[in-house]
Amino acid sequence: MKTCEIISVGTELLLGDILNTDAQFLAQELARLGFSVMHQSVVGDNHDRLLASLNHAAQRSDIIILSGGLGPTPDDITKEVACEFFSKELVLHKESLERMTKYFTNKGLEMPESNKKQAMLPADCVVFENNNGTAPGLGMEKDGKHILLLPGPPRELKPMFFESAVPYLKRFSDKIIISHNVRTFGIGESAMSQLVEDLLESENPTVAPYAKDGEALLRVTAMADNESEADRLCAPVIEEITNRLGDYIYGIDLTCIEEAVVALLKEKGMKLATAESCTGGLIGKRITNISGASSVFDCGIISYSNEIKHKILGVSEDDLKKYGAVSEQVAKQMAQGVLKLSGADVAVSVTGIAGPNSDVTDKPVGLSYIGLAHKNGVEVKKLMTGRNDRDYNRYVNASNALNMVRMYLRGENNG
Amino acid sequence: MKTCEIISVGTELLLGDILNTDAQFLAQELARLGFSVMHQSVVGDNHDRLLASLNHAAQRSDIIILSGGLGPTPDDITKEVACEFFSKELVLHKESLERMTKYFTNKGLEMPESNKKQAMLPADCVVFENNNGTAPGLGMEKDGKHILLLPGPPRELKPMFFESAVPYLKRFSDKIIISHNVRTFGIGESAMSQLVEDLLESENPTVAPYAKDGEALLRVTAMADNESEADRLCAPVIEEITNRLGDYIYGIDLTCIEEAVVALLKEKGMKLATAESCTGGLIGKRITNISGASSVFDCGIISYSNEIKHKILGVSEDDLKKYGAVSEQVAKQMAQGVLKLSGADVAVSVTGIAGPNSDVTDKPVGLSYIGLAHKNGVEVKKLMTGRNDRDYNRYVNASNALNMVRMYLRGENNG
Repeated sequence: MKTCEIISVGTELLLGDILNTDAQFLAQELARLGFSVMHQSVVGDNHDRLLASLNHAAQRSDIIILSGGLGPTPDDITKEVACEFFSKELVLHKESLERMTKYFTNKGLEMPESNKKQAMLPADCVVFENNNGTAPGLGMEKDGKHILLLPGPPRELKPMFFESAVPYLKRFSDKIIISHNVRTFGIGESAMSQLVEDLLESENPTVAPYAKDGEALLRVTAMADNESEADRLCAPVIEEITNRLGDYIYGIDLTCIEEAVVALLKEKGMKLATAESCTGGLIGKRITNISGASSVFDCGIISYSNEIKHKILGVSEDDLKKYGAVSEQVAKQMAQGVLKLSGADVAVSVTGIAGPNSDVTDKPVGLSYIGLAHKNGVEVKKLMTGRNDRDYNRYVNASNALNMVRMYLRGENNG
Repeated sequence: MKTCEIISVGTELLLGDILNTDAQFLAQELARLGFSVMHQSVVGDNHDRLLASLNHAAQRSDIIILSGGLGPTPDDITKEVACEFFSKELVLHKESLERMTKYFTNKGLEMPESNKKQAMLPADCVVFENNNGTAPGLGMEKDGKHILLLPGPPRELKPMFFESAVPYLKRFSDKIIISHNVRTFGIGESAMSQLVEDLLESENPTVAPYAKDGEALLRVTAMADNESEADRLCAPVIEEITNRLGDYIYGIDLTCIEEAVVALLKEKGMKLATAESCTGGLIGKRITNISGASSVFDCGIISYSNEIKHKILGVSEDDLKKYGAVSEQVAKQMAQGVLKLSGADVAVSVTGIAGPNSDVTDKPVGLSYIGLAHKNGVEVKKLMTGRNDRDYNRYVNASNALNMVRMYLRGENNG
């Protein structure tokens, strides 16, 4: 199996002006194709250092993937340096020039002269069409070493990788690696790992625990000749995990809990409403991230003050005074209020102290109450994150609210 | 000036399992300290490759900053390999052992035997205390080359960098670099650059344009002996930019437009309300990201369906039928509706088609209307992003809504 390495080109990366998401994307996808990526590096738009990096990379890797520096300006030199390294001449690639001219014409613009250099390509390369920008990418070979050039902007790089780089690379890849993510909510990473301890020793597929933002997941990864063979290896392990973790699992290969909630609501033909205080719209935002959420979600109230909690949601003024806004009573009434107002089937509410400061009552930062109202009644969950981290607390509150909805929808007695 | 490079250690980075935010953070902060970072690289938890990387780095850089691989498990080998490279012995550092034992005791836990290896440090190093985890970091020197070791988790790395690495590095840094970001909204990167074309040639400070997520900014960067000298160099250039770009500028050194909006609302003693359709809570979420937003924002309505737009916000059923939900008329009435309902001073609304699919009317994806209502009346802005990118459209819609609020608050006649 050939070894592969990634070189990201751009002074803006060295200065930390932008986050290197391209390298993560490429690393993930190359691993999925079965390539061992042993090195990633970042180098600036500098002729000598880029040439030295290529030289160093070629000593240890068979395939070098470069991203960035294919633009029209004089500091974009990746292609020129890569061709120098391989002693290849740049010649005009007419098709690319036509494509670029059309790209500008379609926008009602004339192509600047400077863009023409993007159509200069080595004669014997494989051209990667760019359907989302001007710079074509390419793959080229010399003495068994391969260099692939991809544009830096993620919205150009990602589609080009799938459309052109994957077909180019496939011939070197005799095995593929497939991962499935079993996503859980409501159980910590250690507790989850203990329940599947023996499975973590498994070799093909491997099973590895991860934790992030208040969630834990198990990644099941198999290496095989093809996708269906890899899936066949994973299936019994995923089934065993499913048996052991049960309702903690909200989905396999979903990206987030809101995806599970929207799918369950669709399946049950039910609608959700939200009443948010400290999360300030985050639950609504996360639900409506999911395309098609409009069929299951149509009403959310952000009630950041006591006055609005009372006026719009009908929370008792006495209870607000007596128990404070961050209380079991208020969470309940917020959920009941928006259930009634919206006519939805299930409603969820959050009231809490996200930080950095407490409210007038001196309740601890990280405390919150989540209310859930439906035709069978109302329930409340108290949450203490124990952290003074506004973003984290808001995110975890929203996740817990979504999980309460999920658990309700999974219940037997609400159909 | 000494050269510096960053090596991130971790197989999970090579596999693309996690995004390398540490490298961006370190790159930014090192640039700020005046260091030239010419190389960043990623290497796995592998003895030989890590040693080779150190060797290569030491040939071209004076200071090597390593992050990750300081944990208690057998695959955490960064410290061991770095000491091997410098031929240094590891000895027990009692203070660190005590600190770690206390860290566990405070959590009501006993320290696992495996953690003890984290207290093994080279005898003559400078120890970096870890106040957010167990692994201490360190700085050490040999023959004029320096290696700094920092833990991988960002919540441990960042504070340790400021508390210990910065003091360690300060002695090598004779100049500092300070940047100020002039953030604009409502003008494209090219148009902005044209207005300040001559300033882009300036050398100290430099002025560089950037664009992201529908916004453009100018970064003014000065190198000087100290912060106040750098600021003195930047000041006249920032003033000149301010004169030329005027109201396009929403803030200098702010991180986002919602920060500017919350500050302006506070300054004017005014309250904002929101009525969101396609953005689904994102505007509320962004406003309430800002700590202290509760004094200026207390009511947001997420009205995702026509029914809720009518029932809660009082949008005319006839107009919904006649013009569709994505229309000037509906945007206006949504803003007016939430203004009345909330009793706020200014209200903003968004109704649009975020994609990937259009609504029943076949209006183009990326179309939206933003309404703004206040005591002097109501106005609407039509927006066409021209993109079928749900996340981008929602984000840019929210930003434009926030900018309409900002422009209103800056106006003379609303005081």
